[in-house]
Amino acid sequence: MSALKAGALAGRVVLVTGAAGGLGSELAKQAAAAGATVVLAGRRVRPLERVYDEIVAAGGPEPAIYPINLEGATPAEFAALADTVGQQCGRLDVLIHAAAGFGGLTPLETLPAEDWLRSLQVNLNAPFVLTQQCLPLLRAAHGTCVFVLDEEARVGKAYWNAYGVAKFALRGLVSQWAQELESAGVHVLDFTPPPMRTTLRARAYFAENPETVGTADAPAGACLQAVVAALA
Amino acid sequence: MSALKAGALAGRVVLVTGAAGGLGSELAKQAAAAGATVVLAGRRVRPLERVYDEIVAAGGPEPAIYPINLEGATPAEFAALADTVGQQCGRLDVLIHAAAGFGGLTPLETLPAEDWLRSLQVNLNAPFVLTQQCLPLLRAAHGTCVFVLDEEARVGKAYWNAYGVAKFALRGLVSQWAQELESAGVHVLDFTPPPMRTTLRARAYFAENPETVGTADAPAGACLQAVVAALA
Repeated sequence: MSALKAGALAGRVVLVTGAAGGLGSELAKQAAAAGATVVLAGRRVRPLERVYDEIVAAGGPEPAIYPINLEGATPAEFAALADTVGQQCGRLDVLIHAAAGFGGLTPLETLPAEDWLRSLQVNLNAPFVLTQQCLPLLRAAHGTCVFVLDEEARVGKAYWNAYGVAKFALRGLVSQWAQELESAGVHVLDFTPPPMRTTLRARAYFAENPETVGTADAPAGACLQAVVAALA
Repeated sequence: MSALKAGALAGRVVLVTGAAGGLGSELAKQAAAAGATVVLAGRRVRPLERVYDEIVAAGGPEPAIYPINLEGATPAEFAALADTVGQQCGRLDVLIHAAAGFGGLTPLETLPAEDWLRSLQVNLNAPFVLTQQCLPLLRAAHGTCVFVLDEEARVGKAYWNAYGVAKFALRGLVSQWAQELESAGVHVLDFTPPPMRTTLRARAYFAENPETVGTADAPAGACLQAVVAALA
């Protein structure tokens, strides 16, 4: 399970997007196991409820569920999410953008423009606007924001289309924002997980035996260790 | 002026976006001087007409002017541009994305979401969709497509906001597309100019004496030499 020390995130509030996903759910569960109150943000409530139940069953602090569709959310809806966290949890220490949208490998030439825009919305615009809206809370807590990237050597290859392009873009966003917020004591981190046994990976490597790839367990632990170090 | 050999682009059709801009106008004039029929695409007609006049006065092949607003153009409008080039010029050998939108250095935290989206539209989405629409012509000509990037060491710094993020994204786009089109004989190049005395640079370095920075002359020549090499 987690390599985090018991109580490493005690009293902290952690917002995870894509909290029902392969990486997101591991992040949520391990953060809760380390004492954090976790806000589980995601598109579909049922899978979020399963993560919620696992956290409660493991004796973690009661999490919150916040359904949000990153593809269609307006800036006002992201603001409402941040407001709700502030009002109901009283603070926000950590924001982790674990949500990702990937429809499968496909040539750029035939990718419908709407699919391109939809993917950039989920993978680039949504984390940008949500971070903006959460910054007052993160500033107050001297918090940490994590963007999940992907290996450029892989997603810069043919057919990774808008998902890959967005991951390149996020590296520029993290680079800028880390510098802009340094003096405010807000840490902006990027985290590039190794290949993981997730639904996203299966969409690209559908012929692969998933058993040959590690689970999201260890990567989630490594990510949270970086968060704990940044918060210290 | 240009280091290109006379006639190096004779019989070629070159489409330049942002053709009235600092780099774009130099690219257009030097391509015409090397024998190319240039399609001058840009937002405002008057500045495009000045480039047109200069090309004609220098004895170059008569160029074409195509007014288009990258910020608001729909995929259908980009398709119409490609169709017009195909019908009126008979071919397209080179597409150079020299258009860029940059509103000035500003913190990401306070950048209005609409400004973010508008900038990504001009700097990322528009070149993607226009390239898609031009690909049938570029395939037929075994042509070359050039995306203009910017130094990541600079635009990954604080306050370069969506312009900088888009330039990171374009590197991922070029990487993917170059691989996807390799077997079709279409070359996809990235070109990162050195600091140039342009309006865009003046928006970031407004206290700089422009005389201390080189003009777009030599960079445009270097870009076109890469294009000529790719076409050969």
